Amino acid sequence: MTAWTVAIDLAADAGPTFLRIARSISEDIRRGRLRAGDALPGSRTLATSLGVHRNTVLAAYRELVAEGWIASEEAHGTFVSPQIPDVSPRRFSTQAAVAREIAPRVGFDLGPSRISPLPPPAPLPVPASKSLDGPMSLGGGIPDVRLVPAAELARAMRRVLKRRAVEVLSYGDPAGPPSLRAALASMVSATRGVAARAENVLVTRGSQMGIDLAARALVSPGDVIAVEALGYRPAWEALRASGARLVPLPVDAHGIDVDALEQLCIEQKVRGVYVTPHHQFPTTVTLAPARRLRLLEVAHERRLFVLEDDYDHEFHYEGRPVLPLASADVHGVVVYLGTMSKVLAPGMRIGFVVAPEPLAMRLAAIRRVVDRQGDHLLENAVADLLEEGEIQRHIRRAKRIYAERRERLAGLLESRFASVLSFKLPSGGTAIWTRVANDVAIDAWVARAEELGLVLQPARQFAYDGKSRPFLRIGFAQHDEREVREAIRRMEAALVASTTVRSKAGSARVSRALRSSP
Amino acid sequence: MTAWTVAIDLAADAGPTFLRIARSISEDIRRGRLRAGDALPGSRTLATSLGVHRNTVLAAYRELVAEGWIASEEAHGTFVSPQIPDVSPRRFSTQAAVAREIAPRVGFDLGPSRISPLPPPAPLPVPASKSLDGPMSLGGGIPDVRLVPAAELARAMRRVLKRRAVEVLSYGDPAGPPSLRAALASMVSATRGVAARAENVLVTRGSQMGIDLAARALVSPGDVIAVEALGYRPAWEALRASGARLVPLPVDAHGIDVDALEQLCIEQKVRGVYVTPHHQFPTTVTLAPARRLRLLEVAHERRLFVLEDDYDHEFHYEGRPVLPLASADVHGVVVYLGTMSKVLAPGMRIGFVVAPEPLAMRLAAIRRVVDRQGDHLLENAVADLLEEGEIQRHIRRAKRIYAERRERLAGLLESRFASVLSFKLPSGGTAIWTRVANDVAIDAWVARAEELGLVLQPARQFAYDGKSRPFLRIGFAQHDEREVREAIRRMEAALVASTTVRSKAGSARVSRALRSSP
Repeated sequence: MTAWTVAIDLAADAGPTFLRIARSISEDIRRGRLRAGDALPGSRTLATSLGVHRNTVLAAYRELVAEGWIASEEAHGTFVSPQIPDVSPRRFSTQAAVAREIAPRVGFDLGPSRISPLPPPAPLPVPASKSLDGPMSLGGGIPDVRLVPAAELARAMRRVLKRRAVEVLSYGDPAGPPSLRAALASMVSATRGVAARAENVLVTRGSQMGIDLAARALVSPGDVIAVEALGYRPAWEALRASGARLVPLPVDAHGIDVDALEQLCIEQKVRGVYVTPHHQFPTTVTLAPARRLRLLEVAHERRLFVLEDDYDHEFHYEGRPVLPLASADVHGVVVYLGTMSKVLAPGMRIGFVVAPEPLAMRLAAIRRVVDRQGDHLLENAVADLLEEGEIQRHIRRAKRIYAERRERLAGLLESRFASVLSFKLPSGGTAIWTRVANDVAIDAWVARAEELGLVLQPARQFAYDGKSRPFLRIGFAQHDEREVREAIRRMEAALVASTTVRSKAGSARVSRALRSSP
Repeated sequence: MTAWTVAIDLAADAGPTFLRIARSISEDIRRGRLRAGDALPGSRTLATSLGVHRNTVLAAYRELVAEGWIASEEAHGTFVSPQIPDVSPRRFSTQAAVAREIAPRVGFDLGPSRISPLPPPAPLPVPASKSLDGPMSLGGGIPDVRLVPAAELARAMRRVLKRRAVEVLSYGDPAGPPSLRAALASMVSATRGVAARAENVLVTRGSQMGIDLAARALVSPGDVIAVEALGYRPAWEALRASGARLVPLPVDAHGIDVDALEQLCIEQKVRGVYVTPHHQFPTTVTLAPARRLRLLEVAHERRLFVLEDDYDHEFHYEGRPVLPLASADVHGVVVYLGTMSKVLAPGMRIGFVVAPEPLAMRLAAIRRVVDRQGDHLLENAVADLLEEGEIQRHIRRAKRIYAERRERLAGLLESRFASVLSFKLPSGGTAIWTRVANDVAIDAWVARAEELGLVLQPARQFAYDGKSRPFLRIGFAQHDEREVREAIRRMEAALVASTTVRSKAGSARVSRALRSSP
């Protein structure tokens, strides 16, 4: 018997005694205090020296055998497993069951990242109390989640669980449940001019996933992808993550400059273009029909893919929504993305891709690699709500409310900021793109607003070149009347606070404008 | 006034009349029947010739103006917009509002895929009726979703919605809600020997997402990644999707051959290794302690990352679960993956990654690109259930049931297939890895079983080289007593049906074995 005594600080740890004994012994083996082939004390002997019941030691030994540290030989005793190498002592904790700290850095090369690090998490801007005290945001693209038909959704999910629990809780199709693929195919056929079948539809977790899947399927490192020079940064990050080399193209009152795209194609091999043609993000303009046709022609001639992001499709306030590029896509160049993030809630990630079947299948294969599948309970519930018309009812109701809020915000902007802001009322979406007078220092305005608990979105956030431009994107969907008046009040106060002696005429104008407000 | 008449088949379509008129006119513009600058008929004239109310025509014209096809000039009339290019006629449908068929192929290069296409969707194998008629699967890794604590989960989700609807329905942190990151950090600290803080934890949609994020962060095209030669194909696909060059290493009764890994590192630059050390997938063995230590040493010396997939951690039946590699990871080489897919349900995608903070941040940035964030309603509910101990209660209950089922399946295999199957009872997991006698034609057995409505998993499905090996992976978690007896009955019948005259001794043995069964 080796002259070894196990050092167990039985008082120091929580946890069952047998386990503490086992951990102490395995630590001693790791530290080299016990070596391969060494005999362990008999269970009675160890129990006596530790002052515990023999069964406790037997349980500890069984644990160590199960884990492979020791081996029991009948009539010979218990020995340290011969497979443990002679290890040089490490600086381990003497306490048996203390969890090891995670290393502060990785022990391998992390390498450069293709994408930007995450910004710090933003404080939740929607007012949570009736006192209008909390942080607010006048950013665009924020739906009013209080309008979400939560009760109907909960009811639909309960019904799905009741009837098909096993099915929706088990593994399913990465492309989405058949019910929702079919319902979405019907919807785009009926309302978007695209005769899709379920096989053309992939259900995704928001349009972000659609963008990322398309990028992974279609973009190879170094591929040139054209984007709108004022555009949607998370899409650029997804394209970059797949190695795209982005080239910004100008955006004007009629959308992306298609002549510039054509010129780019003459100069370089272009792989594809990412566009938001319905309500251009962030400028809200609609891509003019002439440009739509020309864009499709160029894509066909040059064999580009056109990633059409039709977020916000339903929220069109003047006439019916404009039919997407996909509705005129004879040659199969369009990869069409839709989302229900503004129809339901951003936290419920329901989006979809509509594409020619060979590409839809490729995207489904990648999707399986990404997260195996979506949330089929939620997706089946949404399918039921689409079939029942509940989603459509909700959209109509939300549209009425958002149309009112669009008018209200427009009126407030006109009356309070007449000489510093100008804009054209957007035909759809959830934001107004306002031109800011040249002598207003936008960044100071935004900074003062932040101090007053109001988030404003200046054009710079959407600019490919990161440079400042004299525009603000102001969202109207998220606030009711009391809330928007408070937000505007903060916006005014911030403007006053930010006005310097830079331009006497400018400050005078601001003061006059504010004095004349109702 | 041009000699143009609009051809509208008013009877043929559904939909509002004004829209059908507008669509016909825009189609005519596309087809070149109307050209830029052409004058349209006055509204009264068109209304008369179509036999509709003038307001209907006015509504159609307003629609076309909103969409940019035509422009109204006071006192001059209505004209086709000057921006429409002269288009050559296309073969369009003459019906106004029919959705366009999606092209059967894409109009750009799809290119080769790094990953395999999806297999056809498998029929749901769990018996859905009490009559035991439906398809069944004896595959491994299928939890019994009927055990999911659905009521508690629903209650927890309702509570989260009641108290924090706005928060969970709005955009949140891509790394997961703070509550769940903290609860998971506590759990791994208390039970897995890894002192994680919330900052080390990323919530993912299943471990699949953890594997894919790690691959995207750490693997560059051409990087050599070592894998177990019998292993988990969806992980290989994720690694391949990021351009990995996989090298299979042998697996024996003690897990992956670490000497072979070391030898590989001598021959080539290796970037990382993907392992399932707790319950090796698919062979169920546990990586021996000596090899664990050596693996960590090699990874440190060679600066490899070790992607440790600890799926099934909780389902360990002999003693306590073995502490993971991450618990001995002094040098920060381990990227630790966990999942609740077998604890909750596969359809509820809850997994997590534990890693040194710089890597966790990188993974969160990529995650934001993938799908923006997880389902924060579900994730918050799971956090609550973890804090209340409800998940832990469920795990204990499921473990008892699965332990019973493990014993029962082992008993049935021993009594019914004594001379064709041999196995060592696995210490954990949800499957038994059985050695099949050499003279049994496995593929024929599997094929006959499929005809009888039973899915069997032969080793070939898990083999890197795709070759057949004489093993079956047989799952025990999914079936209660009636169900497993029926599954075994089908398995026996399939064996008899598949036995050919290849080996008289073999058939004789099978027959004797089956005759001697109770």
